[in-house]
Amino acid sequence: MLVVMRHDATEQEVRGVVQVIEELGYQARPMPGRQRTSIGVVGNDGRVDASRLAALAGVVEIIHVTKPYKQVSREWRPESTVVRLPGGLAVGGDEIVVMAGPCSVETERQIIEAAIAVRDAGATVLRAGAFKPRSSPYAFQGLGVSGLALLKRAREESGLLIVTEAMDPEGVDLVAEVADIIQIGARNMQNYSLLKKAGRAAKPVLLKRGLSATIQELLLAAEYLLAEGNQNVILCERGVRGFDPSTRNLFDVSAVPVVHTLSHLPIIADPSHGTGRRQMVLPMARAAVAAGADGLLVEVHPHPEHALSDGAQSLDPVEFRQLMHDTRLIAEAIGRSITEPTGVRT
Amino acid sequence: MLVVMRHDATEQEVRGVVQVIEELGYQARPMPGRQRTSIGVVGNDGRVDASRLAALAGVVEIIHVTKPYKQVSREWRPESTVVRLPGGLAVGGDEIVVMAGPCSVETERQIIEAAIAVRDAGATVLRAGAFKPRSSPYAFQGLGVSGLALLKRAREESGLLIVTEAMDPEGVDLVAEVADIIQIGARNMQNYSLLKKAGRAAKPVLLKRGLSATIQELLLAAEYLLAEGNQNVILCERGVRGFDPSTRNLFDVSAVPVVHTLSHLPIIADPSHGTGRRQMVLPMARAAVAAGADGLLVEVHPHPEHALSDGAQSLDPVEFRQLMHDTRLIAEAIGRSITEPTGVRT
Amino acid sequence: MLVVMRHDATEQEVRGVVQVIEELGYQARPMPGRQRTSIGVVGNDGRVDASRLAALAGVVEIIHVTKPYKQVSREWRPESTVVRLPGGLAVGGDEIVVMAGPCSVETERQIIEAAIAVRDAGATVLRAGAFKPRSSPYAFQGLGVSGLALLKRAREESGLLIVTEAMDPEGVDLVAEVADIIQIGARNMQNYSLLKKAGRAAKPVLLKRGLSATIQELLLAAEYLLAEGNQNVILCERGVRGFDPSTRNLFDVSAVPVVHTLSHLPIIADPSHGTGRRQMVLPMARAAVAAGADGLLVEVHPHPEHALSDGAQSLDPVEFRQLMHDTRLIAEAIGRSITEPTGVRT
Amino acid sequence: MLVVMRHDATEQEVRGVVQVIEELGYQARPMPGRQRTSIGVVGNDGRVDASRLAALAGVVEIIHVTKPYKQVSREWRPESTVVRLPGGLAVGGDEIVVMAGPCSVETERQIIEAAIAVRDAGATVLRAGAFKPRSSPYAFQGLGVSGLALLKRAREESGLLIVTEAMDPEGVDLVAEVADIIQIGARNMQNYSLLKKAGRAAKPVLLKRGLSATIQELLLAAEYLLAEGNQNVILCERGVRGFDPSTRNLFDVSAVPVVHTLSHLPIIADPSHGTGRRQMVLPMARAAVAAGADGLLVEVHPHPEHALSDGAQSLDPVEFRQLMHDTRLIAEAIGRSITEPTGVRT
Repeated sequence: MLVVMRHDATEQEVRGVVQVIEELGYQARPMPGRQRTSIGVVGNDGRVDASRLAALAGVVEIIHVTKPYKQVSREWRPESTVVRLPGGLAVGGDEIVVMAGPCSVETERQIIEAAIAVRDAGATVLRAGAFKPRSSPYAFQGLGVSGLALLKRAREESGLLIVTEAMDPEGVDLVAEVADIIQIGARNMQNYSLLKKAGRAAKPVLLKRGLSATIQELLLAAEYLLAEGNQNVILCERGVRGFDPSTRNLFDVSAVPVVHTLSHLPIIADPSHGTGRRQMVLPMARAAVAAGADGLLVEVHPHPEHALSDGAQSLDPVEFRQLMHDTRLIAEAIGRSITEPTGVRT
Repeated sequence: MLVVMRHDATEQEVRGVVQVIEELGYQARPMPGRQRTSIGVVGNDGRVDASRLAALAGVVEIIHVTKPYKQVSREWRPESTVVRLPGGLAVGGDEIVVMAGPCSVETERQIIEAAIAVRDAGATVLRAGAFKPRSSPYAFQGLGVSGLALLKRAREESGLLIVTEAMDPEGVDLVAEVADIIQIGARNMQNYSLLKKAGRAAKPVLLKRGLSATIQELLLAAEYLLAEGNQNVILCERGVRGFDPSTRNLFDVSAVPVVHTLSHLPIIADPSHGTGRRQMVLPMARAAVAAGADGLLVEVHPHPEHALSDGAQSLDPVEFRQLMHDTRLIAEAIGRSITEPTGVRT
Repeated sequence: MLVVMRHDATEQEVRGVVQVIEELGYQARPMPGRQRTSIGVVGNDGRVDASRLAALAGVVEIIHVTKPYKQVSREWRPESTVVRLPGGLAVGGDEIVVMAGPCSVETERQIIEAAIAVRDAGATVLRAGAFKPRSSPYAFQGLGVSGLALLKRAREESGLLIVTEAMDPEGVDLVAEVADIIQIGARNMQNYSLLKKAGRAAKPVLLKRGLSATIQELLLAAEYLLAEGNQNVILCERGVRGFDPSTRNLFDVSAVPVVHTLSHLPIIADPSHGTGRRQMVLPMARAAVAAGADGLLVEVHPHPEHALSDGAQSLDPVEFRQLMHDTRLIAEAIGRSITEPTGVRT
Repeated sequence: MLVVMRHDATEQEVRGVVQVIEELGYQARPMPGRQRTSIGVVGNDGRVDASRLAALAGVVEIIHVTKPYKQVSREWRPESTVVRLPGGLAVGGDEIVVMAGPCSVETERQIIEAAIAVRDAGATVLRAGAFKPRSSPYAFQGLGVSGLALLKRAREESGLLIVTEAMDPEGVDLVAEVADIIQIGARNMQNYSLLKKAGRAAKPVLLKRGLSATIQELLLAAEYLLAEGNQNVILCERGVRGFDPSTRNLFDVSAVPVVHTLSHLPIIADPSHGTGRRQMVLPMARAAVAAGADGLLVEVHPHPEHALSDGAQSLDPVEFRQLMHDTRLIAEAIGRSITEPTGVRT
């Protein structure tokens, strides 16, 4: 950490800062410059609260050198984390896992039809929401607990693993009973009560990046999960808020290599929410795999024109087969492969 | 709602869209243009889910004319809502309410000292967090339930009303026992489980705008509260995510007149979080009042250099007196006034 | 400047960086930390090109402490610059200058009518474009040279000073013959050929902030003008690109106090482009003055419903009188005043 | 175009809008809704200036259905444009063109060494700046005209084509004499004097997307070039302004498929500026090709640690060979190929 002083800071103000740094248990290293003095804080373990220093007389700015997260960082654990799932699946290794399915569970028929369609095309995890966070209180909010029961049925019928969202601490227990992966949605990335609960769950967590979260904020949210003891965390890029209405979100593909540089955790990509437009899902799925994504999360609906939510960004089964075909070739081009389904997993 | 067709959409595709619109119970009004056909949806009450239409063959885009919110809109209720508080205070009328205090409750001495300082300078509501959402799991997270007890003490000592944050559904009950206003923080603006719970509470709610929430999303979040029956909602602008590191957030003063145009709900402004820099709080507080804000939320700490959180943006009592002085003059210039403290309120 | 090394950087890599810093003529001050070593660069006068250091082995990041601009900074010149204009007008002192007029010069009758209307309401400078940068090549691009002649006529008729835009180096000469202030538009803030030419002109320059320019970039663009010898520079906040379609731009009122902190140059505000909506111009003009703006730039058209450009954000003369009335009161509340017209200026 | 009326607009106000629409030569089609009336404008050819309508009494909003650009749109010309270059090169067909080289021309030795290195690795066009737009007036601004002479030498020595930037109208003539492609930089995307001049040049133009330009604005800027008669336009995504400091820009890979949907013009990608970090250039180059980019623009310096500008994002020749290897495999995976050098081109 570097404390930057005003250009007209007095000797006494500099000494005041040095004293507080030392009170906090660190060493202070003043560096007089031509225009101003800066003071290095040596021995910082990443937990110094800059607030106290920032409020001192003569201080202009605090610059952080050490990252504020710890357990999620690659410096803490150099080898990449591989999250193990039932049936031998793994996220974060050489194989790329494709998770696909409709936005919401709607009916038994719909979810089973969807599950079989995506499995037959090559997906290994079924995604679908029982609890749906929606901007409007009047929009379809999901089937809730009965949706979870239908997901259980779909798991039995298709042999696919299940990833589905929990929206509050109570939901974590309900979802953990049925799902193989607990999803935390973008709107809840900084819902700390929810993160703490999921950090104590016995299932892996898929943590989606918030709509305007920096990578550092995403990693700090993941740090909440690891700090509670859950090491099985999969990050997910799903588009950030941009200024251009030509796509629903700005799909930040570069988040994939940035996360791989800073953290040992795997990161997958959701080109459906990331773009919000059906015709862009295929090229952006290819881009994400080419950039090194450890998996894909794709919205597929057996009949998008009848979907109760997000029909505009859902692929139909034929389009999804094309996506699987193309991304298999891209994966091979970079020396990886797509995990293939192998029957019922338990 | 307007459904825009591709320029090469067929007659049959246009008929397909018309048919679905009619199935949904609305009238379709096709408008052939030189380059493309658009189809107006007549009779839309703001609840049509565009998803199904967006997924139809030949459709390029759905354009919304009717706003998706309802009870919060000024069209629904033309007169401005005035939220009544104990002791005769009101937010949303001619008077401007100033809420001030430290970021966090730290000790009994600190909170009482702060309460008396801000009251003596002219604040009528004490703000301070017992539960603190923090980006890092290692940062000070607030005193929790014992912080609420200290707030109760401060209320008794100072006669100020209390606004403090609830972070999860359980927290709503705890906070509602002590506070006069339940705050929902920016990170939780789309935490729907929390919103639904607060919408059933018997206390007014202060809803802060999310870090990258559009005004429409803010109003939709407020709609959740009204839809559950709580009409006493105060909105709060507190800065959005910008691209310029010269301020911590981009304080969107224009949110004030935009909200006043679209909604009957009062909106206050938080120049402390809005800018993140102590020396900018005063000019931006003046700007917010000049723009028509119905109140201010200001961080004041008796000793900012010892604050456990957000010291860099906290005013000391002397600076806060200056802020009160300046904003009183601005309020008068636009024909309003600052609510003055009148002793213990109950 | 601080050079941050990778956590696993070798001794040799650290020595390599130290050596290059010394080759560049500065002192290196290594600071070993628990997690990584950082190296302070002492004696930096703000002109070190970080590129060479950033490319060295083992370097993770370069952190700038010294600002890259110089002559525009308040550290270089502590007293605020006052830009003197003909007729005794001054921008940057206690008085606030209001510049108003239509988006474009359209006809002799229109511009003279507009000039007299804004003068009678209290404006002292007439704004109107002869050369108009437009996103579409098919939109009205201004009258060009004949528009300048009409501005000259309007100046004679009304006694107002003139501010109008130059779009390219040749335009600077043409505009400088007629105008009292040469405007450089937001789209051209980083058009360096234009800046250099305007920096050699004998007239003051009004430099508008680019649509996504940071304050530092705005100050660096101004530095181009000062570096060429033109000290009479007025900055202008006119809204930045945001994510919320509820306003055309995000009017960053906080730019006013930020600029006042970092630079000695005056800054005015343009609430018309800043918001893009007529009904928001009045409250945001009040907010800008309350925040400390040294002037206002306001679009006023005698008949907005017939304007060839930007009618949606133009005030009519009645609305503009209201704006003048309100901002006079705000100015007084903060101890300033609005410059009043005093007849023909020459 | 759709004119949305206020919910309380009077019959007379609706008639007023209808009348103006008809005066402008279009048909008006009013659509009364439950909450408000909207009025469709039929026969709009994309050139209606909305300003006049937006200023009418009772109007709340203007919604555009027809795109404001024309000649660049795929609806105007359904087949993709292929820009032909000397030596049989083509941008926009099945082959992907790689343009590589240093940020700036520095010395004869440097530019020839760079040219041969990138040619030997497989590039077919040499990129390097003689005129450099720099944020700071004190940064290295390029060698200017003598840099152009060195580029001519490098062309002769290496057989590579040349792309280099023109910063102002005069520069267009100078650059056009030497270069095979005239580059217009991101900061100048809306420098209309420059665009008009380049639109009359006899050489193809590479138009980089502005730092916060929407795709629509990029296409409108290209429309300026086509409107002046230059059909040989190559667009370039190079990163937009984002909120996350973990990359220098936010590389918007999705711009590639969006442009391909809306326009017939080819689009290439610049992962060097797009990310600003050397270690991210390779994965993001792969991603851009996978998304369908028609070419790459890559910064390569023979000795990045000695570069006068942008060393931090320049690859060295070894890294660039790896990039060529990887992107060849990605190109093949999607049925395309990288254009291979074939000796001196004239």
